[in-house]
Amino acid sequence: MVATDKFKKTPQTDKFNLSAYLKERQQLCEIALDRSIPVVYPETIYESMRYSLLAGGKRVRPILCLATCEMTGGTIEMAMPTACAVEMIHTMSLIHDDLPAMDNDDYRRGKLTNHKIYGEDIAILAGDGLLAYAFEFVATQTPQSVPRDRVLHVVARLGRALGAAGLVGGQVVDLQSEGKADISLETLNFIHNHKTAALLEACVVCGGILSGVSAEDLQKLTRYAQNIGLAFQIIDDILDITATQEELGKTAGKDLKAQKVTYPSLWGIDESRIKAQQLIEAACAELDSFGDKAQALKAIAHFIVNRSN
Amino acid sequence: MVATDKFKKTPQTDKFNLSAYLKERQQLCEIALDRSIPVVYPETIYESMRYSLLAGGKRVRPILCLATCEMTGGTIEMAMPTACAVEMIHTMSLIHDDLPAMDNDDYRRGKLTNHKIYGEDIAILAGDGLLAYAFEFVATQTPQSVPRDRVLHVVARLGRALGAAGLVGGQVVDLQSEGKADISLETLNFIHNHKTAALLEACVVCGGILSGVSAEDLQKLTRYAQNIGLAFQIIDDILDITATQEELGKTAGKDLKAQKVTYPSLWGIDESRIKAQQLIEAACAELDSFGDKAQALKAIAHFIVNRSN
Repeated sequence: MVATDKFKKTPQTDKFNLSAYLKERQQLCEIALDRSIPVVYPETIYESMRYSLLAGGKRVRPILCLATCEMTGGTIEMAMPTACAVEMIHTMSLIHDDLPAMDNDDYRRGKLTNHKIYGEDIAILAGDGLLAYAFEFVATQTPQSVPRDRVLHVVARLGRALGAAGLVGGQVVDLQSEGKADISLETLNFIHNHKTAALLEACVVCGGILSGVSAEDLQKLTRYAQNIGLAFQIIDDILDITATQEELGKTAGKDLKAQKVTYPSLWGIDESRIKAQQLIEAACAELDSFGDKAQALKAIAHFIVNRSN
Repeated sequence: MVATDKFKKTPQTDKFNLSAYLKERQQLCEIALDRSIPVVYPETIYESMRYSLLAGGKRVRPILCLATCEMTGGTIEMAMPTACAVEMIHTMSLIHDDLPAMDNDDYRRGKLTNHKIYGEDIAILAGDGLLAYAFEFVATQTPQSVPRDRVLHVVARLGRALGAAGLVGGQVVDLQSEGKADISLETLNFIHNHKTAALLEACVVCGGILSGVSAEDLQKLTRYAQNIGLAFQIIDDILDITATQEELGKTAGKDLKAQKVTYPSLWGIDESRIKAQQLIEAACAELDSFGDKAQALKAIAHFIVNRSN
């Protein structure tokens, strides 16, 4: 399989058991997320927030945050509140994106979407609640050992990653591009740099901010994150097509059906795969100065491009 | 008129020109809010955020924040980013409340609501964008002269005021109480303590946090704010009825039409007005130790109970 071949290209990852690492971190995140939101009166809103927040997933975003903090000399404890916050923000964006007024999706990860269970009104409020709580959680739960200016820097980065200069802006251009077959590579890059890469970048960068890295290292982390963010999206686009080809008898993939311009539609599948691989190599090269400590982030980068779902 | 009589009860406010004070502060807030969000690509989302943020209003919330910061020894400059943030949060809650899935309102302050102009999808995103930006704005724009732990404390308070333990929680109980004629005073208090008072309290308390008040003074500010918050809502309920009585030939007030339990429906109008006045007196008494410096906040408290819209 391609996945195995690609892994062998990066010697550092050979001795690193990524699967065990991801499983362990995922469990830590699940415990922290479960504890983050207790159910009190009015129960409905907390249950709705928990329904989507605890709906599973690979927890790539919080794991990236924890891994970066550890690589740069910090601890899991320092980064866990921020790791939970990025998952709250990610979850909020999924709840609102799934609404009838937006993408109108009934299912996500095989489960009914939030508004199908709780109604549109509660789903909108659950998103708002998660968003507000993400910032409160970072501000109140980050250990006192982390200097307050770093925590404030994290708040600012999360706000930017989420707002009109990030996720929200990307979603707006995506909505405006729907059904248009002639959107440019520039527009496509804007959408994904904002919809997908901005939050992934914030995860990585905030991990570094919490441990107090230099401006130079912060730049390296930023370039690492931007590269894996774009690769992540290219692979998403490819999977939308290849998953369809395997499922014969079904209608074409979601992007194809929506006449969406994607990287494979611009470059073809093979060229897209090569570009994704190049982005991952470039991302990993940014981390060379961190030596062996970078093995987790490098392995995660390769995992992103080699994943099958 | 009642308004004039009530004013004379508080000697400090006689020599204080509240009308000029509010006008001046309102203008400062308008300028700061206008500057806070520039229009860049993708323009639609910034225009949508600005449409609702700059739609006028008395700017009571930001003015409360500025006034508290000044009363407790701080400056307007220290509090202005937080003042703008509370107005962004307030605006976001109005945009989402007006959505078809929530209260389904077409007009607010005589203007079409956000989703009637920009569509539901953009309106949801404009709310999300304002919310994210509120936190980013406080974190990045508060002058460096304010210690970072205070700014972080403000972030935490704003998050709590907005989330499931504040505004969002109040809105959920309000939605669940619709059409029920038998809701208790306890439930009614919960709705308003969360939907209205929580953010008003945050405005006042954050103004004090920024100037670094003692824990004891913070308690006084909290009680002042809780009292004016409840009085504010009682007066809102009364105005919904009296405005209707003056406009003969029209159907009953919005609350009455929606069979909402309100303070006047529980206590009657006269008793409600007395309770509101008592709350304002109690609020002002909390500020006695601040001497003459408290005249603006005391005058604002009386303004809230004597307003006609």
